[in-house]
Amino acid sequence: MLNAVTEERIRVRYGETDQMGHAYYSNYLLWYEQARGAWCRDRGFTYKSMEAQGYKIPAVEVWSRYKGEVKYDDTIVVRVSLTEIKRSAFKFEYQIINETTGQECTSGYTWHVLAAGDPIKAISIPAEVRELLERDPSQFDRLA
Amino acid sequence: MLNAVTEERIRVRYGETDQMGHAYYSNYLLWYEQARGAWCRDRGFTYKSMEAQGYKIPAVEVWSRYKGEVKYDDTIVVRVSLTEIKRSAFKFEYQIINETTGQECTSGYTWHVLAAGDPIKAISIPAEVRELLERDPSQFDRLA
Amino acid sequence: MLNAVTEERIRVRYGETDQMGHAYYSNYLLWYEQARGAWCRDRGFTYKSMEAQGYKIPAVEVWSRYKGEVKYDDTIVVRVSLTEIKRSAFKFEYQIINETTGQECTSGYTWHVLAAGDPIKAISIPAEVRELLERDPSQFDRLA
Amino acid sequence: MLNAVTEERIRVRYGETDQMGHAYYSNYLLWYEQARGAWCRDRGFTYKSMEAQGYKIPAVEVWSRYKGEVKYDDTIVVRVSLTEIKRSAFKFEYQIINETTGQECTSGYTWHVLAAGDPIKAISIPAEVRELLERDPSQFDRLA
Repeated sequence: MLNAVTEERIRVRYGETDQMGHAYYSNYLLWYEQARGAWCRDRGFTYKSMEAQGYKIPAVEVWSRYKGEVKYDDTIVVRVSLTEIKRSAFKFEYQIINETTGQECTSGYTWHVLAAGDPIKAISIPAEVRELLERDPSQFDRLA
Repeated sequence: MLNAVTEERIRVRYGETDQMGHAYYSNYLLWYEQARGAWCRDRGFTYKSMEAQGYKIPAVEVWSRYKGEVKYDDTIVVRVSLTEIKRSAFKFEYQIINETTGQECTSGYTWHVLAAGDPIKAISIPAEVRELLERDPSQFDRLA
Repeated sequence: MLNAVTEERIRVRYGETDQMGHAYYSNYLLWYEQARGAWCRDRGFTYKSMEAQGYKIPAVEVWSRYKGEVKYDDTIVVRVSLTEIKRSAFKFEYQIINETTGQECTSGYTWHVLAAGDPIKAISIPAEVRELLERDPSQFDRLA
Repeated sequence: MLNAVTEERIRVRYGETDQMGHAYYSNYLLWYEQARGAWCRDRGFTYKSMEAQGYKIPAVEVWSRYKGEVKYDDTIVVRVSLTEIKRSAFKFEYQIINETTGQECTSGYTWHVLAAGDPIKAISIPAEVRELLERDPSQFDRLA
């Protein structure tokens, strides 16, 4: 079930702004991460539980194009979807809507590798993980 | 004098790590920013002084590929260069060397727009700014 | 209406942990800030609107005692109340409950000064601000 | 050798400011942490090496009083000293000087507990750790 979108609503913190009066550009990566966590919950599991099973999923690539304005106290919606799965890697895409202004703003993507072991090494995505990634969110209640 | 490299040495903070034991992926964007500040100083001016003259230079795009390991207390060197100038935008490229491990690791780029006004709008890069961007660092002492 | 408590629920981000596996100690200050924002909303106004009226409310003192564990993906509840008002300063107190573990954990306080002008200077709290600080939240709907 | 001061020089990052134009209040805690790392190096060891030996030293209390202004690109000096040692805890005190403005500004303290094990538990400070804490920095070269 690739491309099914999960939405995560986030209010911008004061500490996430900079002296230009906008959200500082690194904070979007934290919002992407929070949205990925919601994406998992929407499919009935947590990223935390994946780590508990011995997997790690580091980001190996990120791209962001900043458009529009995101300011303190704005409510943004991060729309996240999984758009590509390779042998040991997969890609999330993001689109941020600023609910406060009504504008579409920043979009981006991240690539992640499935890793395990100590030190961690990339591994082929096993069936049990592939099943999670391919879940249809309409079949699951979003975890609290 | 495009492509002249400035190096900025940074020690990784504990608060920049995450529970995976590596530097969290958003922190590289702060290191890129710090390196851009050093890039300006290497050419005899500061980014701060540009804002004092009414310019803002927001990042409008960022890309990073994470390789190698960057851990707490590692000393990294960010090698930054300006590689492209357009009418109102310019691009910095980054290569991070982990001095502690000797590995080349993360590389990336950022695009920035020259902006001014309130609210800020992109403007054509004027001669006085172009002169700064094209400076040859060997002609300047790095500002303290 | 001093001491009326507002609760703000926050899920801990991966980027807020450190390599010890707990939330890094500075992040609590962002959570306190987020809780203060909720405290305002509970009383029918926003901190943003106060800045729009020319006020700034910098933190001038913070204290935190870290107890219990707060880890990635835990849901915490920050209980915040305004406990003291002086001529130009006021104090918020915080108690964090880790909902995931059921433990009471970190508690703290912050002192803030009401300031205005450019550069900002502390001012006596005027009646219009005092009215906001003393509001009874049961008389207001929490702003969305 | 309690109270011997170590100084750590830090340049304020753009991403550490907020829309008020000052350094956001949580970032001081990262600067305190960086200064503690320098304090160790001044005494010939690293905090990293202590973790490698199985110790963890979480902060259990922090207090800060914010004075003066700390802005983007300012160079601050954090003066840190160990001022008290108890059975399993010890206290660092901090004084920040803004070199750019010449002002004394924020001061603070942190309490830390020596912990070990998994999950970590506070332990009595053993002789090998006490020896580190009581070192006279004039007897050691600061580690690179």
